Amino acid sequence: LRRNMVPNLKNLINKAHPSDIAAAIEILKPFNREKLFKFMIEHNIEKAAEVLIELEEHLIKSILDLFDDETTAAILKLLSTDDAVAILDYIDDEEKKEKILQLIHDSEKVEEQLLYQDETAGRIMTTDFFSLNHNLTVKEAIEKLHQLEEKAEMVFYLYLVDDNQRLTGVMSLRQLLLSNPDAKLKEVMQKDIISVRVDTDQEEVARLVSQYDLLAIPVVDHDGKLVGIITVDDVIDIIKEEAAEDIYRLAGTSEEEILYKGHPFKIAKIRLPWLLPAFAGTFVVASLLDLISVKFSYFAIFVVFMPMINAAAGNIGIQSSTIMARELAVNEMEGSIWKEVFSTQFRVGVIIGILYALIAFTFSFILAKPVHLPKLIVSISVGIAMFIAIIISSVYGSFLPIFLKKMGVDPAVATGPFVAASNDILGTIIYFSVAYNIVHLLQ
Amino acid sequence: LRRNMVPNLKNLINKAHPSDIAAAIEILKPFNREKLFKFMIEHNIEKAAEVLIELEEHLIKSILDLFDDETTAAILKLLSTDDAVAILDYIDDEEKKEKILQLIHDSEKVEEQLLYQDETAGRIMTTDFFSLNHNLTVKEAIEKLHQLEEKAEMVFYLYLVDDNQRLTGVMSLRQLLLSNPDAKLKEVMQKDIISVRVDTDQEEVARLVSQYDLLAIPVVDHDGKLVGIITVDDVIDIIKEEAAEDIYRLAGTSEEEILYKGHPFKIAKIRLPWLLPAFAGTFVVASLLDLISVKFSYFAIFVVFMPMINAAAGNIGIQSSTIMARELAVNEMEGSIWKEVFSTQFRVGVIIGILYALIAFTFSFILAKPVHLPKLIVSISVGIAMFIAIIISSVYGSFLPIFLKKMGVDPAVATGPFVAASNDILGTIIYFSVAYNIVHLLQ
Repeated sequence: LRRNMVPNLKNLINKAHPSDIAAAIEILKPFNREKLFKFMIEHNIEKAAEVLIELEEHLIKSILDLFDDETTAAILKLLSTDDAVAILDYIDDEEKKEKILQLIHDSEKVEEQLLYQDETAGRIMTTDFFSLNHNLTVKEAIEKLHQLEEKAEMVFYLYLVDDNQRLTGVMSLRQLLLSNPDAKLKEVMQKDIISVRVDTDQEEVARLVSQYDLLAIPVVDHDGKLVGIITVDDVIDIIKEEAAEDIYRLAGTSEEEILYKGHPFKIAKIRLPWLLPAFAGTFVVASLLDLISVKFSYFAIFVVFMPMINAAAGNIGIQSSTIMARELAVNEMEGSIWKEVFSTQFRVGVIIGILYALIAFTFSFILAKPVHLPKLIVSISVGIAMFIAIIISSVYGSFLPIFLKKMGVDPAVATGPFVAASNDILGTIIYFSVAYNIVHLLQ
Repeated sequence: LRRNMVPNLKNLINKAHPSDIAAAIEILKPFNREKLFKFMIEHNIEKAAEVLIELEEHLIKSILDLFDDETTAAILKLLSTDDAVAILDYIDDEEKKEKILQLIHDSEKVEEQLLYQDETAGRIMTTDFFSLNHNLTVKEAIEKLHQLEEKAEMVFYLYLVDDNQRLTGVMSLRQLLLSNPDAKLKEVMQKDIISVRVDTDQEEVARLVSQYDLLAIPVVDHDGKLVGIITVDDVIDIIKEEAAEDIYRLAGTSEEEILYKGHPFKIAKIRLPWLLPAFAGTFVVASLLDLISVKFSYFAIFVVFMPMINAAAGNIGIQSSTIMARELAVNEMEGSIWKEVFSTQFRVGVIIGILYALIAFTFSFILAKPVHLPKLIVSISVGIAMFIAIIISSVYGSFLPIFLKKMGVDPAVATGPFVAASNDILGTIIYFSVAYNIVHLLQ
């Protein structure tokens, strides 16, 4: 960013696609990043606004901190309402948000939209859309399109409304182009419309757009009035966001962590609620081991093979519950499916269980040097315990998501650290009770 | 599906959206599902074809088994080439595939497309697109649009080519509508085009469409000739598929498992490659425990608290590596970032480590009844080992994905069962060596 490069840089910024500039900004050092952004605001504030909305959350926050309320308001004015709302959501200071809202000329719309619940259609829609009265003719509609301001988001569907702004139909630009110029829009428009309400959850919005291969979906209020649209590019962002959320949930953390780079206390606060319940679960395992090592000390040899059995059972349990959680997300399950799931998972457990039991038997026979028990009895017990633990985990792992769903809990949480801990407790109990019974049976 | 309902059902099928029928079919019992599908083929084969492509993979396979090659070919003929290619991919029998290909009238296109690598732009593109010579005028272009056959996939961009079919420009229908009718297309078209090549990976296709908010992306061959397009609805499917893949990989299995419902041997075959390496890893832990219980038997009390420490360290390691894998997927990391990551993760580890160490100390002090060692020394050792294991896991967890990326491995695999096992081994070694050293230091 040398002085003599200013004309070149200006040229580059004017020509480049906002998302390319955003990608470049993300790899710059904070100091250069700020310099480049200030430069953009000075020379091409429209582009600066377009770039801002493309940045990652933590960068948007750090860049917003650079500017006074007037500059922020000037940037927001250039954005469509959904983008302005999204940016305002990153400002935590309520007073500051209020001040900026007052500075935005047409902030009424933005303020109204901020009233909708987070992650609903009302909150993510854009109110800069294009609609026409269905009493116009095709020719008049084409004329209106000519006068259209540039800001309205990607136009590919025409939404048609009655005199009360209620959504009555839709047509594509191609249909418009191919229709008789003198026909009224309401005669040629398509009347079954897939639309959502302002309070529809964003996941449902994404599901509809993806199921019906739409490019945009209209949003209506409680009276059926058209109040906004959600375009497919925003739906792609929702799908990516939800997918990332699922992965973070599996790992027992949240995307917020990335926002707090360099704030270890905040990160620890995010992680602890996921870690502590699982940690408490391990106390049960420890207490069991303590009981065994004190009261049944001749039994301590079995402790050696416990991590092996717990890990094997835990891994197969996670496989089963991930597959089942996914099936539940995609399909409705009827009553009869339970039997099918049980029988499949049981048989998978038997196959893997036999293999693992043989390996565990051989391995423990080679390794174990028991003091109080015959070697063969220890190895047989380890093998049989492994067999039973694998089968139970495979079946338990598939039923857990079904059970969670019945209880109204999202089955996608069924493979987080908490469940891993419950798997460990179950595995430990199965292992020692099987081993105990076999030892007493064979001896 | 009673006899007297035939006219109603026919009517319903004609009116309903293919994806709604597909959703209904998915919840039917296999017997009714087959009946309904046969009914559709008889009465509305176009709709049957549209419904088939909307179904889930395992249902497509089971429905294809119902029909002879002629019926399958008749259905495929009604689909666009990308959909026909996708369906043909579900037929495993090469001979059968060949026979069906011969029955499809214009199978040359389909055959050609089957030659492209799986998961590349060439394989997923549709060749039913609409392009125009850039020497035409706007008026002529609008006339051409009028003659357009219905089958061409959603038209919203016009792709323009030179006399050699090479892609030279693009314009939206709206731009076409707003341009001077007598202007030549090459004068008004947009000349920087974002396109992909036939061999571009589908993930890269999805990234471009999502980054530039496109509705479709053109696919060119090695000479720059336009050979197909990929529309945003297909990109949404890719994004969902890749997200699901990531989740299955975390759980150590694959989506294929759902295809093999009721085939436990096939499912076991899918699961074993993920399970066995992790299982082998646990042998190391078992060998360590055996060594301790035999050679250092006064040390057996520490075994009681090992699962607690391994679970805590494992969970925090998964949190760190998930966050880091995500950051690597989104950003390029420069050299300087290493220090920042290290310092943040180290400090997060210290905070959580102190808390966990205090809990572990208190818990082990209450629970432990050591025979050979003073109680306080055992508890202090457990606490300090916990502290160190947490810090190391937090840092190790973040560096693993960076290391994997440097080695050319997808960092998204960094949290599967294999890594969990390596975490367990690391945790066990840290725990016992710390405990051993502290006991010998304090005693």
